[in-house]
Amino acid sequence: MAVYTEVGDDELARFVARYGVGEVLSCKGIAEGVENSNYLLRTTGGTFILTLYEKRVREADLPFFLGLMEHLAAKGLTCPQPVRDREGTALGRLAGRPAAICTFLDGVSVRRPTAQHCAALGETLARLHLAGADFKLMRPNALSVAGWRPLFEQAEARADTVKPGLTEATARALETLERDWPTSLPRGVIHADLFPDNVFFLGNRLSGLIDFYFACNDMLAYDLAVCLNAWCFESDLAFNHTKGHALIAGYQKLRRLSHEEIEAFPLLARGAALRFMLTRLVDWLNVPPGALVKPHDPLPYYRRLRFHLRVAGPEDYGCAA
Amino acid sequence: MAVYTEVGDDELARFVARYGVGEVLSCKGIAEGVENSNYLLRTTGGTFILTLYEKRVREADLPFFLGLMEHLAAKGLTCPQPVRDREGTALGRLAGRPAAICTFLDGVSVRRPTAQHCAALGETLARLHLAGADFKLMRPNALSVAGWRPLFEQAEARADTVKPGLTEATARALETLERDWPTSLPRGVIHADLFPDNVFFLGNRLSGLIDFYFACNDMLAYDLAVCLNAWCFESDLAFNHTKGHALIAGYQKLRRLSHEEIEAFPLLARGAALRFMLTRLVDWLNVPPGALVKPHDPLPYYRRLRFHLRVAGPEDYGCAA
Repeated sequence: MAVYTEVGDDELARFVARYGVGEVLSCKGIAEGVENSNYLLRTTGGTFILTLYEKRVREADLPFFLGLMEHLAAKGLTCPQPVRDREGTALGRLAGRPAAICTFLDGVSVRRPTAQHCAALGETLARLHLAGADFKLMRPNALSVAGWRPLFEQAEARADTVKPGLTEATARALETLERDWPTSLPRGVIHADLFPDNVFFLGNRLSGLIDFYFACNDMLAYDLAVCLNAWCFESDLAFNHTKGHALIAGYQKLRRLSHEEIEAFPLLARGAALRFMLTRLVDWLNVPPGALVKPHDPLPYYRRLRFHLRVAGPEDYGCAA
Repeated sequence: MAVYTEVGDDELARFVARYGVGEVLSCKGIAEGVENSNYLLRTTGGTFILTLYEKRVREADLPFFLGLMEHLAAKGLTCPQPVRDREGTALGRLAGRPAAICTFLDGVSVRRPTAQHCAALGETLARLHLAGADFKLMRPNALSVAGWRPLFEQAEARADTVKPGLTEATARALETLERDWPTSLPRGVIHADLFPDNVFFLGNRLSGLIDFYFACNDMLAYDLAVCLNAWCFESDLAFNHTKGHALIAGYQKLRRLSHEEIEAFPLLARGAALRFMLTRLVDWLNVPPGALVKPHDPLPYYRRLRFHLRVAGPEDYGCAA
């Protein structure tokens, strides 16, 4: 659940006036996005999302995120498009925080994605990777392999309180990944957090992607591995091969995976599972008493990690070399 | 902050289909209303508020609340209007809870109400009281004088941990109010919770009232006393006489207070302050560790109560007998 910064009605009216989107009709804090305060803003000019960037987002990264959304939208990918103010600037300040107004996307998140949803996601992910190819700004992935050990060290001493043996198992998985993590696969702009919450559908049609605040430059196939982890496991944490195949085949309709990418896929899937397990574990162990934000349980990502450790090869995911 | 029940996309689509408001375009949980889960629902037919009634609202009271909103809206008061389904029923069930779809109101809550806002509020409150006069359903006010002692008894043993001397001062105020609480003032339907959060403005024009989930039958002037407490004190808790006068004069433009109502006003104001202090105190003392809801501080209402205990007469509020 999102954090909410309170915005006064008068400062809101002054802020919105700069953007030439008409006058404020209503503004509701919405439960979307974990890192920022988001508001559904209705004005005489339309419906928008107003975002206040809270302290977990680095201000220096905002031009990358906003620029990327603008770049992708210009290439026809449906994602929130930052509105520029009368001086041509998208990023402003409101209630003491960096803030931006973006266009509103219709659609709802699916709670139980079908194979058809996964196929549509795969296609759109490939479209995102192709559209991002000529985006000029760079942002390294702070949560790639080099970032995992520092996270592990924050959790190491207490990981066994979450599940006996977790420390040892994580240490072993991390060592292997640090040793074998690929370095020469095709790279580009990735979303890096394309969970079902961040993908909208109208019926079976994918209507848009949101929340680009983890986007960065990294291996393209890693993004697909993140999606596989987030979309292709059932609620009992069994891997659904049909969904995995649909996701990867959907992706390959627009961007063929290379032999190297396919071969590396089990490792990438393991890395993606470890990355989300580690951030969730750190949050889980460090939730302050009385916190307004309930952290995600890290263990479902440990279960995924164990699945990936047992697969025989890329064909187990539905991608044939 | 509101509680959120998660609603699946498929069960939402089925629920909305019954209401003949078109197809779901988006549905966002919003931070509005403390007792219920509220969603801003956009469909091909328009924009609505979807409410899931959580356990703090008694299901048996829902026909009163929904019927009242329908009644008031039919009389021209701008408030959410429940949408009836194809069978003519407003109340349905979604995600295991009673649920309703209401029309969406434009407007924003004001954080620092001006005297002009207070005057507009007074007028609209009088309009609500007049429009409610022929509403047929009844709901006694569970949080009137008879409800205060049970609340006090829940807090009594620990009230001094919040502020030394609070138990004794509250006991004395409660005794006087139980003895002197008026019984023969004009009664009718009251909102009973008309805080700035529940009143929308577009500029200085009051555009609507929301959150009728404390509405009940009680003394009309008590509702005005609740508003005076909620709207006419500054952030340093000093009473603003200009705002008090504006509120009461606005009210009297449409409904004149009787001599008895004016005489009783200081007592009603004290009762209103005690009612909110007590519910906040009980919530404050009983917040579970790790709770998602941050309770309101009860002490600002204790400060108001002390102000009311010191006033010389109704003229101190700006209402002349």
